[in-house]
Amino acid sequence: MTSRDGYSWTPQDGLKAGVPSLGVVSPLSNIVSPEVEYDVVVIGAGYCGLTAARNAALEGLKVLLLEGRDRIGGRSWSSNIDGYAFEMGGTWVHWGQANTWREILRYQMEKDIEMSFDFEKGVKHFELNTPDMGVTMTHQEEDQLLAEALNKFTNVDGVYGRKIIPLPHTTFHNPASIPLDSLSAQDRINEIACTLSPRERAVLEASILLASGGTLETTSFHEFMHWWAMCGYSYQGWLDLLITWKFRAGQSTFARRFFDEAVASKRLAYSFDTPVQHIKDAGSGVEITARDGRRFRALRAISAVPLNVLGAVTFDPPLPPGKQQAIGIGHVNQTVKVHAELSNKDLRSWTGITYPHNELHYAIGDGTTPAGNTHVVCFGGQNKHINPEADIPRTKRAVSSLFTPAHYDGQGVQIERLVFHNWSKDEFAKGAWFFPPPKLLINHLEDMRARHGNVVFANSDWALGWRSFIDGAIEEGTRAALEVRRDIDKLKGRGNL
Amino acid sequence: MTSRDGYSWTPQDGLKAGVPSLGVVSPLSNIVSPEVEYDVVVIGAGYCGLTAARNAALEGLKVLLLEGRDRIGGRSWSSNIDGYAFEMGGTWVHWGQANTWREILRYQMEKDIEMSFDFEKGVKHFELNTPDMGVTMTHQEEDQLLAEALNKFTNVDGVYGRKIIPLPHTTFHNPASIPLDSLSAQDRINEIACTLSPRERAVLEASILLASGGTLETTSFHEFMHWWAMCGYSYQGWLDLLITWKFRAGQSTFARRFFDEAVASKRLAYSFDTPVQHIKDAGSGVEITARDGRRFRALRAISAVPLNVLGAVTFDPPLPPGKQQAIGIGHVNQTVKVHAELSNKDLRSWTGITYPHNELHYAIGDGTTPAGNTHVVCFGGQNKHINPEADIPRTKRAVSSLFTPAHYDGQGVQIERLVFHNWSKDEFAKGAWFFPPPKLLINHLEDMRARHGNVVFANSDWALGWRSFIDGAIEEGTRAALEVRRDIDKLKGRGNL
Repeated sequence: MTSRDGYSWTPQDGLKAGVPSLGVVSPLSNIVSPEVEYDVVVIGAGYCGLTAARNAALEGLKVLLLEGRDRIGGRSWSSNIDGYAFEMGGTWVHWGQANTWREILRYQMEKDIEMSFDFEKGVKHFELNTPDMGVTMTHQEEDQLLAEALNKFTNVDGVYGRKIIPLPHTTFHNPASIPLDSLSAQDRINEIACTLSPRERAVLEASILLASGGTLETTSFHEFMHWWAMCGYSYQGWLDLLITWKFRAGQSTFARRFFDEAVASKRLAYSFDTPVQHIKDAGSGVEITARDGRRFRALRAISAVPLNVLGAVTFDPPLPPGKQQAIGIGHVNQTVKVHAELSNKDLRSWTGITYPHNELHYAIGDGTTPAGNTHVVCFGGQNKHINPEADIPRTKRAVSSLFTPAHYDGQGVQIERLVFHNWSKDEFAKGAWFFPPPKLLINHLEDMRARHGNVVFANSDWALGWRSFIDGAIEEGTRAALEVRRDIDKLKGRGNL
Repeated sequence: MTSRDGYSWTPQDGLKAGVPSLGVVSPLSNIVSPEVEYDVVVIGAGYCGLTAARNAALEGLKVLLLEGRDRIGGRSWSSNIDGYAFEMGGTWVHWGQANTWREILRYQMEKDIEMSFDFEKGVKHFELNTPDMGVTMTHQEEDQLLAEALNKFTNVDGVYGRKIIPLPHTTFHNPASIPLDSLSAQDRINEIACTLSPRERAVLEASILLASGGTLETTSFHEFMHWWAMCGYSYQGWLDLLITWKFRAGQSTFARRFFDEAVASKRLAYSFDTPVQHIKDAGSGVEITARDGRRFRALRAISAVPLNVLGAVTFDPPLPPGKQQAIGIGHVNQTVKVHAELSNKDLRSWTGITYPHNELHYAIGDGTTPAGNTHVVCFGGQNKHINPEADIPRTKRAVSSLFTPAHYDGQGVQIERLVFHNWSKDEFAKGAWFFPPPKLLINHLEDMRARHGNVVFANSDWALGWRSFIDGAIEEGTRAALEVRRDIDKLKGRGNL
């Protein structure tokens, strides 16, 4: 089935809105006659909402799941085109991501992942283009260059952050790390600038922006260090945990397991195409008003709405000042992720950075399509932001500019297909994965996590561990479902925890 | 409360059987009138059984939990003496252990862990004693020595196992790794012997035996590589994931969360001091006979009994040949773990290996007790096995022999307390954590994992990932509960998954 989300472009069909996905839900609702009152209404069917809804339903609650889109997955979903998976949002998973991997094992999907990289085919090099240079190197040299640059950037304590952030799940556990949240990535680069070679600086900046999707000035250095700590304080961990393993059939196959299991419990009602407009907390329970005017009642609500979208929902009573301030600040990630299918078969083992002058600055060969073409995934962000659908020739140029023909076959790349989701223009995302500007977390992490009466706020945006990741979404959905189930148990005298 | 498990010795009181633990359950049973039939009976209240029982109860099943001991935790539990936690079995956890960390986050215990090491206090060195040498070195030199030795041992493919075991959760995913399971650790040492310095060889052998608790001949090289892969193919990961972070108040505080949550569901019946003797599968359900003759009926059984103990339970119909063969072979881990409280206050930052002539070959400073004494945890195993309670003077000598007085204060160590659990003599363990001899896994991993009619076999001993660890136990309990719940849903027409 085809979601209205996402875009594809081919020379034959031109630009088309909407791409097929296993995550599309049909029919869009299973509500026959609305319950008088649900135990809990979950707002948002990304991984966080799916986890919360599934856990609550499995543990006996009557659950209503509301979602503005026509599909599950939120900011993480895959399209399947001619049987080939393009990851529209989040992609990579790893067994070092506790919540994700627990679910992968639980669903017996540990054999359903494959490696993004294949450095054994065709053009085996890394290409680095800046306004001042254009060089190629082996992937081993690429790794050495990136490791060196990232080590310099993260080595704030002589042990690459290990001392200053010993326990990454308790974000500000060590008070000594707090000042790092007042620094931007640019501030930190300025501190070490004299130690960086031009190549190191270019790949470092591109790597930072690949993580944050913001600008160097709007990227919290502490949050970058948090990612680094989660990856085991090493470049090898950075590679392994962030961009190596993905679902062979696309991650919507993963999200479906959550949804299908929740549906099978027969305690899940759901309605897609149902954006929520207003949440009223009457003390004894909540009343949710959808944009179409329908009202739903429940004892509790779990809002799995991302930070950048929360401002579009009205609350009665209003949200407390701290949460409102966090919403006002928002996160900074405006990543542009463009999949390009290239007729050049030899680029499977290619990687490249073209920075800072190109709209897409980081790209890797990520697969071979059924047509035998090379699939390259390309990333841009706030620093040179584009709306890929707005000017296809420009988007194609941004893809082509990653490759210097002289460095492979002497011909330009031939683009057979583009696939992407414009996260910045998406009213239910208003950006890609969460990345905080300086001071957002130290000032408002607790605000973002706090419940508001009968409404529990759960989202990867304020997870403790893999904040911004699928993993953080599952972490948060787990937390919210448990909190609400305990509430309901207490209300109904069913338990004592 | 005091468990009958474990021993303590002090100069004042001498040897005493039984130590206090938060894991002791009182009253031992909550069965008022036995149900005619439970949905599932779970046999064993270690982490695997606890997880299975909790998940099944939370998801609506009527659960009976039977346990031979007077406490939860199985091979992983902590004693609390004067408010200080001694870990009797498994100790360390890390956020790279998916199932464990998911639960730690779910129970909001991420702030309840602390680091075992503290290299800032008193005697800051590593001591290496062999029959031929006695040396001390800094902890940095210790790390370099161990990293070098382990790198040589694991570097079977030029990338420290990364190529040959790319996906550690699918154990024999890469056929090229299969031959490694026919090798013992001794075989592998023989291959690289000429590259090892005497120091490297000593610390390597001691490290291998610290992992396996067997002998070099009975330790599967493949399983060692599996551990290494799970740790990210590096010595730093080995340290981080295996022996760094522990529960400040002891891990029985963790196990209690599972048990208490299951009890609070009001769907858990339990009976401790209830060893199971016989499991009869009547096709429509199972009948469990306890050693005391009581019988219990359920639609399904989850046996969380360890491999080395399974032979003591009779089955009707009998277990299939493959499972019986695996039971006949058993695992090889006969780790001896002895906690020593030393009046020498300066040994907190000390670590040491005394090998192969000492009964305890590996030890680390692990804490400071309320009395201000140093707590050192010491490990031995099959290679020079002792029953610590059988000859206390010998056990004390084995502790003392780890320390060369000339290397710290010139005095001998003063032992104020010993605490330990004799896992080898424990009828419900018959060994410590699972470690396989060569060929057990390649021949019988699937046999061990297979269900037998209405009996699902779940245990960390045959987990996919952190096999032998708390994490593997939770993995397996999760798998078993889901499998049984789906069975019951189908039987009762409650779901369709």
